[in-house]
Amino acid sequence: MVRACVLQGSILKKVVEATKDVAAEGANLVFSTVGFSLKATNPSLGAIVAVVLPADAFDSYHGVCTVSMIVDLHCMSRIFHVSSEDDIITVEECPEPEGVSLVFQNPRHDKTSEFRMKEISIDKEWLLHPLHIPEVEHHSILETENLATLKMPSLVFQRICSELADIGDSGSVLVTIKVTEEAIKFKTKGELGTSIVTCSQKFDVQKPEESVVIEMNEPVRVKFSLKLINSVTKAASLSDRVTINFLREMPSVFEYKIAQTGYARFYLHPSKEL
Amino acid sequence: MVRACVLQGSILKKVVEATKDVAAEGANLVFSTVGFSLKATNPSLGAIVAVVLPADAFDSYHGVCTVSMIVDLHCMSRIFHVSSEDDIITVEECPEPEGVSLVFQNPRHDKTSEFRMKEISIDKEWLLHPLHIPEVEHHSILETENLATLKMPSLVFQRICSELADIGDSGSVLVTIKVTEEAIKFKTKGELGTSIVTCSQKFDVQKPEESVVIEMNEPVRVKFSLKLINSVTKAASLSDRVTINFLREMPSVFEYKIAQTGYARFYLHPSKEL
Amino acid sequence: MVRACVLQGSILKKVVEATKDVAAEGANLVFSTVGFSLKATNPSLGAIVAVVLPADAFDSYHGVCTVSMIVDLHCMSRIFHVSSEDDIITVEECPEPEGVSLVFQNPRHDKTSEFRMKEISIDKEWLLHPLHIPEVEHHSILETENLATLKMPSLVFQRICSELADIGDSGSVLVTIKVTEEAIKFKTKGELGTSIVTCSQKFDVQKPEESVVIEMNEPVRVKFSLKLINSVTKAASLSDRVTINFLREMPSVFEYKIAQTGYARFYLHPSKEL
Repeated sequence: MVRACVLQGSILKKVVEATKDVAAEGANLVFSTVGFSLKATNPSLGAIVAVVLPADAFDSYHGVCTVSMIVDLHCMSRIFHVSSEDDIITVEECPEPEGVSLVFQNPRHDKTSEFRMKEISIDKEWLLHPLHIPEVEHHSILETENLATLKMPSLVFQRICSELADIGDSGSVLVTIKVTEEAIKFKTKGELGTSIVTCSQKFDVQKPEESVVIEMNEPVRVKFSLKLINSVTKAASLSDRVTINFLREMPSVFEYKIAQTGYARFYLHPSKEL
Repeated sequence: MVRACVLQGSILKKVVEATKDVAAEGANLVFSTVGFSLKATNPSLGAIVAVVLPADAFDSYHGVCTVSMIVDLHCMSRIFHVSSEDDIITVEECPEPEGVSLVFQNPRHDKTSEFRMKEISIDKEWLLHPLHIPEVEHHSILETENLATLKMPSLVFQRICSELADIGDSGSVLVTIKVTEEAIKFKTKGELGTSIVTCSQKFDVQKPEESVVIEMNEPVRVKFSLKLINSVTKAASLSDRVTINFLREMPSVFEYKIAQTGYARFYLHPSKEL
Repeated sequence: MVRACVLQGSILKKVVEATKDVAAEGANLVFSTVGFSLKATNPSLGAIVAVVLPADAFDSYHGVCTVSMIVDLHCMSRIFHVSSEDDIITVEECPEPEGVSLVFQNPRHDKTSEFRMKEISIDKEWLLHPLHIPEVEHHSILETENLATLKMPSLVFQRICSELADIGDSGSVLVTIKVTEEAIKFKTKGELGTSIVTCSQKFDVQKPEESVVIEMNEPVRVKFSLKLINSVTKAASLSDRVTINFLREMPSVFEYKIAQTGYARFYLHPSKEL
């Protein structure tokens, strides 16, 4: 039996696109018998990414072993770029100098494409360990540590951040997020002037998927790199809704739920400059 | 009562796009109780732009005061770029350091975007005065001063100029416009060779909107910067037809009529090099 | 009578697009009473292009004389770029300094565009002669010289080469083509790793146009510049199928059949580096 994992590739392609910018320094991908996970830390951006996709998040998933790889997601992205939406992907380890083999088979069977990728050499030990972010483990957040929780359509969040970036000048611009009981405000200052986008609490029984829910314990005022926030919002392709937890003296958590139990989570350290 | 003007933004967005390149050195925008106007001079290009949009040219327009601002239209363009077709815009003056506030509210009410723009400091006195182009005031042109008038579909005019620019080499290329009784000829010379586009007098009772009408008093042969002419043709988004007046020893006038009494007019000095 | 050839331009536009990169050093175009031909050699790429389009390959073709020109196809491409699909083109010689005139008339008759192109000065004598590639004349290939013949959908061939180029790094990458009785393999090595695309022999009575047919006398293993192969595959716009002949100690022949008796043929010298 081939020691490989065979899966339908479209959701994996979305995960790679959604995380490649935040995980720019390399990511640990694990394909196992129960599903897929991706972990990456980016110390220079002050960000951590964790993606968990159980087998049932895929249209089809069949894993007979565990294949673990540390790869450059921008390379993965270029490989997925030439794949079709409905390609079946076989992932397996292969001998050096390349460490991983990805085989794409399309349903029309007119060609088979194999890519043997080089793994990147980073501090593997660290990456292969469980993520060292116990303080922000999602289910263990104490009520008293949670300043505010925001739930909104992921596309609205993406449009707001993209709008601010289009007006803003450069990669160094910060966005200030201010949460009150009624509204969340995003503010940037650039050469052109000042941009303020306001998103108010909103609930329509007819369209609960469009609701904007603010649960505030304490008012929040944090700053993030506008470019980093924009990278995070790409995960809108993975989920219709985003939940943002603003925590006391801890990274904020941006969570996109996928299928029943899967998720993509981004842990961002607020910028010090206030 | 808020001292502001509230209006539907789509036509304003088109005006900004159509005039930003000709008015590259800044424009004076006035929102008043009766409508909108834009004035700009560009001495280095030898061009003047005047746009007048009465309130009825907008889907909705409500002004309770006059807001005047001198702004960089390329900044305005970036702000409008992120707006939606159906956004309602509130324009008002705001305190320094920004001088103007534009608030965009979309009908879905999922967010409100405010942009506080810096005004640009140019010779305000001059700009705020009525345009100093009495000699070319449209309604006062003497018959004897009018060499020729050309009326044609604005998209055909745009396609011709864009075609010449695609073949031509650089921004320094000139286009020669030659008007005879039967036809108008556009000619450029570049590295690739010579391009000549001919547009003949034409009238079809079934499709009067496609007619090309030449009223010639004297044959015309003038040159303009091909790049500048191409900037002017962007106003095709504002009107289906363009009227060009070639005047004796005065700038030529390119007029796009908007709604009942509105217009965008470009006054271009022909290039001296002949 | 005007000494010109009048023809419908859409297929000519496709020919120019499909050959301009391989024929980057200039091409000889001949419009005659019986049809059109294009010949070009590119010594630096080790490639020869020959296109023959009999009059019946055009929607309409009417030639009363022979017009021959040596032109830069990238210039031609820019001129055709602004033409419409259904333009009628009149080709005739014109006086120096430009040598050729192309007049585009669209069926809506709203404008006529004339381009007077400069011919390029290359070793005309050589180019105007019949192509000096008798050893690879298609119909005279001896069975014993033909290592293998491959027939496949031109779009599949194009997708494979484009996929390898998207993953590959730069213009200097080589693609190795390996033909066995069952399959053809395309392999490249780049910074990201190794890519191998396999296309198997395939025949479906229901869809003969999707068949992949391998006729192998001897196994083949040749290398070409990936960039050059990608330029060749643009001819997929001219024909649904491509036939590749791998010959002993001779250039390989990539043939795209057009209409009944027309064709575009690319003769490529395999790269020496093995």
